Amino acid sequence: MKQIAGKQDGYTYGDESVEVSPVTMDELERLKVSVGFTDEDRQWLKAAGEVLADQVKAIVTRWRSEIIASIPHLARHSRSLKGDKLPGYLAQSNLRFEQWILDTCLREYDQEWLNYQHEIALRHTSAKKNRTDGVESTAFVPYRDIAAFTAVLVETMKPYLAAKGHSEIEVEAMHRAWGRSLQLQIALWAQVYIASPGNEW
Amino acid sequence: MKQIAGKQDGYTYGDESVEVSPVTMDELERLKVSVGFTDEDRQWLKAAGEVLADQVKAIVTRWRSEIIASIPHLARHSRSLKGDKLPGYLAQSNLRFEQWILDTCLREYDQEWLNYQHEIALRHTSAKKNRTDGVESTAFVPYRDIAAFTAVLVETMKPYLAAKGHSEIEVEAMHRAWGRSLQLQIALWAQVYIASPGNEW
Repeated sequence: MKQIAGKQDGYTYGDESVEVSPVTMDELERLKVSVGFTDEDRQWLKAAGEVLADQVKAIVTRWRSEIIASIPHLARHSRSLKGDKLPGYLAQSNLRFEQWILDTCLREYDQEWLNYQHEIALRHTSAKKNRTDGVESTAFVPYRDIAAFTAVLVETMKPYLAAKGHSEIEVEAMHRAWGRSLQLQIALWAQVYIASPGNEW
Repeated sequence: MKQIAGKQDGYTYGDESVEVSPVTMDELERLKVSVGFTDEDRQWLKAAGEVLADQVKAIVTRWRSEIIASIPHLARHSRSLKGDKLPGYLAQSNLRFEQWILDTCLREYDQEWLNYQHEIALRHTSAKKNRTDGVESTAFVPYRDIAAFTAVLVETMKPYLAAKGHSEIEVEAMHRAWGRSLQLQIALWAQVYIASPGNEW
């Protein structure tokens, strides 16, 4: 699998520093059923991973520089508390964002993936945000904005999936699988927000 | 607006018994921006409301009887703790489910709507589930299943939106607006789950 972010970028997939997720594999299986995520979707995501592999930088640029940057209440989470740019933070988290697209498409959804889902969620809450990159930015990303912005991460993906000449039916299938996986992931990430005593809604 | 559920069915939209939402109108406005929900989407939802008005019973039957009923970990929330059917509960909550489709399409997203969003969320948690209908069923619906099942509520809607002869572009626009609204709503509902001390993830 193409590797975009490494340990030096704070990407620790499969690393022993990553906690075991409090979510069980059985819960994950039931959640897949709730979302309608099938083995066929896994296959379409693998196809999507091939299609997207050389486009992830463009996709993250679109999300981060064109969409998030123009929405102050979202942009602030990549900036200092005074609102200054933090180029190193942005660069590293962009690489991890790119890597996440590939992980979503190409990784097996196994215990290691589940653990890293938990790590991703923690890094959006005050438990772990800013630590990986050693920055002083907002203490957490409110869950509501993650859940809401998922709509954008799904909608904007379609043209990239269509960029390599696949049929409309194939693009639809890849896009549906992408949307289902993202819904599965925000359901997983909610665990950290709901289980922790603070209110980071 | 077509009214499907009334007070006798536990539908209390606009009623003085409904608490003021802890979410502010300003927060709602920012959340619309996060989800990409525009005034144009409001208009497309109104068009969708016309298209769906005489199909809501069929839609809820599809969701409840064909999909949820076949998934034990979802079906149990409409049943007794022993797993017996509760026909009255199902009938009333189906009417409210139908009404919710119309409310999503046709109501203004104002303070009253925001308050009822809060009421809907409470009715899925142990704060209020079962009370409206005076039944003994599961204590709450886990947030993760609501977030996950939203993917199904979005995907399955398209053929109903296409059932009245609108162009593909119009159907796409109505469907996109529907999807954005649902993402907005699960972001709102998360407030109750995250702010309450229990863990109903």
